[in-house]
Amino acid sequence: MRMVDIIAKKRDGYELTTEEIQFLVKGYTDGSIPDYQMSAWAMAVLFRGMSSRETADLTMAMAGSGEQLDLSSIPGIKVDKHSTGGVGDKTTLVVAPLVAASGIPVAKMSGRGLGHSGGTIDKLESFAGFQAERTREQFLQQVRDIGVSVIGQSGNLTPADKKLYALRDVTATVEAVPLIASSIMSKKIAAGADAILLDVKVGKGAFMKTQEQAEALARTMVEIGGQVGRKTVAVISDMNQPLGRAIGNALEVKEAIETLSGNGPEDLTELALTIGAHMLVLGGLVSEVSEGRTKLEEIMRSGKAVEKLAQMVKAQGGDERDVYEPSRLPKAKLAWELTAQQSGYLCGIDAEMVGHASVVLGAGRLTKEMPIDLAVGIILHKKSGEPVREGEPLATIYANDERLLEQAKRELKEAFSYSETAVALCPLIYNIIG
Amino acid sequence: MRMVDIIAKKRDGYELTTEEIQFLVKGYTDGSIPDYQMSAWAMAVLFRGMSSRETADLTMAMAGSGEQLDLSSIPGIKVDKHSTGGVGDKTTLVVAPLVAASGIPVAKMSGRGLGHSGGTIDKLESFAGFQAERTREQFLQQVRDIGVSVIGQSGNLTPADKKLYALRDVTATVEAVPLIASSIMSKKIAAGADAILLDVKVGKGAFMKTQEQAEALARTMVEIGGQVGRKTVAVISDMNQPLGRAIGNALEVKEAIETLSGNGPEDLTELALTIGAHMLVLGGLVSEVSEGRTKLEEIMRSGKAVEKLAQMVKAQGGDERDVYEPSRLPKAKLAWELTAQQSGYLCGIDAEMVGHASVVLGAGRLTKEMPIDLAVGIILHKKSGEPVREGEPLATIYANDERLLEQAKRELKEAFSYSETAVALCPLIYNIIG
Repeated sequence: MRMVDIIAKKRDGYELTTEEIQFLVKGYTDGSIPDYQMSAWAMAVLFRGMSSRETADLTMAMAGSGEQLDLSSIPGIKVDKHSTGGVGDKTTLVVAPLVAASGIPVAKMSGRGLGHSGGTIDKLESFAGFQAERTREQFLQQVRDIGVSVIGQSGNLTPADKKLYALRDVTATVEAVPLIASSIMSKKIAAGADAILLDVKVGKGAFMKTQEQAEALARTMVEIGGQVGRKTVAVISDMNQPLGRAIGNALEVKEAIETLSGNGPEDLTELALTIGAHMLVLGGLVSEVSEGRTKLEEIMRSGKAVEKLAQMVKAQGGDERDVYEPSRLPKAKLAWELTAQQSGYLCGIDAEMVGHASVVLGAGRLTKEMPIDLAVGIILHKKSGEPVREGEPLATIYANDERLLEQAKRELKEAFSYSETAVALCPLIYNIIG
Repeated sequence: MRMVDIIAKKRDGYELTTEEIQFLVKGYTDGSIPDYQMSAWAMAVLFRGMSSRETADLTMAMAGSGEQLDLSSIPGIKVDKHSTGGVGDKTTLVVAPLVAASGIPVAKMSGRGLGHSGGTIDKLESFAGFQAERTREQFLQQVRDIGVSVIGQSGNLTPADKKLYALRDVTATVEAVPLIASSIMSKKIAAGADAILLDVKVGKGAFMKTQEQAEALARTMVEIGGQVGRKTVAVISDMNQPLGRAIGNALEVKEAIETLSGNGPEDLTELALTIGAHMLVLGGLVSEVSEGRTKLEEIMRSGKAVEKLAQMVKAQGGDERDVYEPSRLPKAKLAWELTAQQSGYLCGIDAEMVGHASVVLGAGRLTKEMPIDLAVGIILHKKSGEPVREGEPLATIYANDERLLEQAKRELKEAFSYSETAVALCPLIYNIIG
């Protein structure tokens, strides 16, 4: 088997065999297939696509290219959750303890953020002392003990995907849907998922700009799940404006705690309940989504969801008082209020621009090495569609540096757009596929 | 400027600017752009194509990526000739002295062969003592003195093309027409051509299998010539069966000498006169092709064409007696005659299979390092369309090794196909573009 023939076959629109896909993933992982062949192949995939069978083969080959997590010592169906990422997306902080409190085990590996704000692990580190690096045994033991653990990615999981992802980034082949789908799914499968809930974001602040693109990606991933025996459901949700009202690590943790108590913003609460209810179905706890939703609403009201978060924070080295008294979380030195420049209706809060302003403040990182400022960020007082009067507060910026605050102010102002008449809003949830 | 953005632009079907193309050729030549980006770009070009302007820019950037030959010390318009290559293609051996004898200077760099039989330089080395490696000054002086020199490629000409060509070979991107066209044209321009005659082969023994493909490549090269001020004419000629009757280095030299004397096979004579006549027009010696043809026929008859070859061989260290007495050329030890297996008409002599049989004998090389046996090869006694009787000689194999002869026999037999009725032949010349 020669890689040049495999590239030519894909270039000419033919379907690759399972053996050919295994050959290329193995060869790329062990270095016998060089980057320059892999990038030409990736570009051919971008133009020609891959069949469901090919995409499933690629997913499984990448999932098997390194270590794989064995969650079998945890009883029950392990449901993992993945978001394609967006601004203000703290859904995992809500969903993980919420679902765990219902009795479904949540053993989750999460990433640190790049671009926008921090990732789930960065956000959790707002709890002083929180340990994201755990041994396998600590991780599994904690899930067996309290039903939930969220840790950083560790070990040599999916090395083929890591290498291919970095290559795609510099060869303009990130956009190939089968490659995005197999990258996400291979990581979930290597991390031991029995079933997978995907939150595919769509809009200005998301990688997928149109509903059509987001649905194509979602369908591809749901098909992979079907092919490889991991039941998969995808929720297509809005990322034109930030999710919730808080953007920035400690600010988002605080909002997640409010949401777990039943006092969160409407959109975040709705999305968390939708995702959580589907996870309860996937986990076999309930047979209907509506039943799952009712159960989760009860858990929120009962205080058990907040309690589960407190248990997790404590189990991973943090102080549970930070959960019950969020004023103990990191706080910024400076606050500045952005006010409306005209009266009318907010017709848009550009998620990408708000995300960028938060990165300027230090809430996110642009390179892997950049430190993160956990305290800074933005709180939105108004969201798209709401009426505003000139001079009314739109948002508050929390900063630790005067110079960065000035830059963030200029950027944040640009994110808001106004209309004189009431506007039609994008739905929060566009579609559910699975 | 970032290479990843240039790849994305081409991937999305946009036209690259002159500056972008210069940036990528310069960066690839100096190593700042890695192979893995260049191969992704080449695959995007394969799918998206390039405009005439882009292709011309790529050609000139590659021509300028290394040394360039200055032929200005030779008076007149320097017309170069290039063939896309085929089996039995000894046209340069005929055309170079023929055109030079008319007064048009021929300063030509030629290659060694890879696959099929040897290249022009290999063939010329059938003359014992022939020097293909000359200094620039020796080369130019010889053309000023006797009007013709054919030498091997020397110096650091078009390093960008060399690197890109090797990369395309292993990334299934050889087939991109703008890349084939700019590769050929950049080499001709770096070698100092004022005008260019292209012999684009089409058929079973050629890289371009269909007339449509061959014409697309020809048109692309003629357009490049127009864009960069090098008048270019392309002849589309047949390579379904071998050209002429001789395949193998010394055997082809002997046939070229016969052709220069006016006693060559019909197809080779016709092609050489057509190409030569167009070169006389390009060189400004005549205004009509028919006039050029008449002049070249006279030169053949007068003996001046053979004389010019003898002058060149002598000037480059060979013995001119080898030209006047071709029996002095290298001869093989073994000869074996292939006879017709049935009566009827020959409806095909597969050029690729004959070429492969000649490589088996040692007439060509499969890797750069393989030595060549100048004496061995094949002489065809019949060509496509001719009637044959069972047992009549079809071809003679000349070999120096019994074992290789046996293998070549088996392969050569397979190259001939028969018909019971007279067959319609492919034309020798399909089209002339320019």
